[in-house]
Amino acid sequence: MRVPALGKVVVLGVGLIGGSFALALKRAGAVATVVGVGRSVPNLDIARRLGIADRTWTRDQRWTDELIDADLVLLATPVGQISALLASMAPVLGSTTVVTDAGSTKQDVIAAARQHLGAALPRFVPGHPIAGNEHSGAGAASESLFRGKPVILTPLPETAADAQERVENAWATCGGVVSALDAARHDEIFAAVSHLPHALAFALVAQLAQRTDGADYFRYAATGFRDFTRLASSDPEMWRDICLGNATALRRELSAYRAQLDRLDTLLLSADGAGLVTLFERARTARNAWLARHRDDPD
Amino acid sequence: MRVPALGKVVVLGVGLIGGSFALALKRAGAVATVVGVGRSVPNLDIARRLGIADRTWTRDQRWTDELIDADLVLLATPVGQISALLASMAPVLGSTTVVTDAGSTKQDVIAAARQHLGAALPRFVPGHPIAGNEHSGAGAASESLFRGKPVILTPLPETAADAQERVENAWATCGGVVSALDAARHDEIFAAVSHLPHALAFALVAQLAQRTDGADYFRYAATGFRDFTRLASSDPEMWRDICLGNATALRRELSAYRAQLDRLDTLLLSADGAGLVTLFERARTARNAWLARHRDDPD
Repeated sequence: MRVPALGKVVVLGVGLIGGSFALALKRAGAVATVVGVGRSVPNLDIARRLGIADRTWTRDQRWTDELIDADLVLLATPVGQISALLASMAPVLGSTTVVTDAGSTKQDVIAAARQHLGAALPRFVPGHPIAGNEHSGAGAASESLFRGKPVILTPLPETAADAQERVENAWATCGGVVSALDAARHDEIFAAVSHLPHALAFALVAQLAQRTDGADYFRYAATGFRDFTRLASSDPEMWRDICLGNATALRRELSAYRAQLDRLDTLLLSADGAGLVTLFERARTARNAWLARHRDDPD
Repeated sequence: MRVPALGKVVVLGVGLIGGSFALALKRAGAVATVVGVGRSVPNLDIARRLGIADRTWTRDQRWTDELIDADLVLLATPVGQISALLASMAPVLGSTTVVTDAGSTKQDVIAAARQHLGAALPRFVPGHPIAGNEHSGAGAASESLFRGKPVILTPLPETAADAQERVENAWATCGGVVSALDAARHDEIFAAVSHLPHALAFALVAQLAQRTDGADYFRYAATGFRDFTRLASSDPEMWRDICLGNATALRRELSAYRAQLDRLDTLLLSADGAGLVTLFERARTARNAWLARHRDDPD
């Protein structure tokens, strides 16, 4: 019998991301024991029942006792909780335990790691799997969630090569395509292509929902509205943390976008049909070229 | 053999909407002859080859000769062309020919009909099928496009009951669920749930595409971006016409949305996590409730 590459993996936050990571490692025979830690007992029960975790602890239990002999810890909670979790973990981490995270923002997570991890900092490998959907909880986990999907690591100058390799191997086992990126650049890029679209979708739906005659609007909303607003079904707490964690880059993107809306309004006011077609053509051409390069994600 | 309900139907603009309408009527045996009129010879060739139209004319040919004995004419071109087409049609319409349209804006189409149709005005029935996707052309047509989808008619006080009934029956044959709405209210509602989301999606992609380092952004764009921007693959000319045709209502919605983005920016600036969660929760709750009422359109 093959010995699993990882003896024990501790997953903090057994939701869509953490649960799918654990499930993929287990199905691949790449881990002997998965320990799940979370806030919700019913969700942890689901995680055990689905074979995602072998045992589970709530946050008010002695979950940190599991860390001393853990090979890998994945922080897959909303990013706003990572700093406090790292502070709890730091004194009791095993000497060879590697810690990684799946947060959508990287500079804030790195700042927390620098603040709390001390001598363990070289064994922290910041990461971000580019996968997921608007569903949440262990019940939404899937062993194939990361298959063919990018996983970005944003290692520090201090990050140990063997720690990074352990995290790379784990994600590769899940089917992820691992690459590295500067953390600040990561946050700029994801502010534009992920965080802003989420914020815009939430804003649009909230704006309609608060109208006294909102029902009239929703009644006629169709497939275009459904696609445009899908991100507004995402987890509010997770997205609060991302928006606050990456507020500087997100506000910069929001400002650029509002300037673009000003231009659009000017085109409408002046009935500038040629200007509108130019704008729309530029968007369509760019999007279709992008789609053609992402054939695995058909429209 | 059953006699088709409609002898001759003329479709102006044999694209996704016009083509699907013709195809559904033909497959149902509800029309004897479909005449297609369009600007692009290759597209008209496709329409004949796919059995959408029995014969076709380009706009510079004598297509208006087909109108004298037509039972129904569907205007399914971009809305910006409807006024000129109505002007060409008015002098040569048959005395019992009914005219309808599939435009996404209604007040501008009605104004054009009032201007051009004269005595034929009671036989004009403004309409808007709430179906479609980002694809275009006869090749994208499908007999099932309208099945179970709302079709809104915005009849005038002058509209003849039998004309409206003929249009209702045609859409019902296509599987559409027909209802009536005031034209101004139609334009308000669709500015919010359709025209604004299209404009916002075009604006976001155009804004990224014009960056010198745009490729870095598109490289990491994932499924959330794909869904949010799907509308930006829509036909630029069609959406220019819709935006200009409904500019007043669209600018009102754009203004309300920009005010919402101002509030969002304030929440980010003040790191108001509770305010963000309230906004996001309101959006998620409203969207999920809407989805639950539209179970035929799963997410």
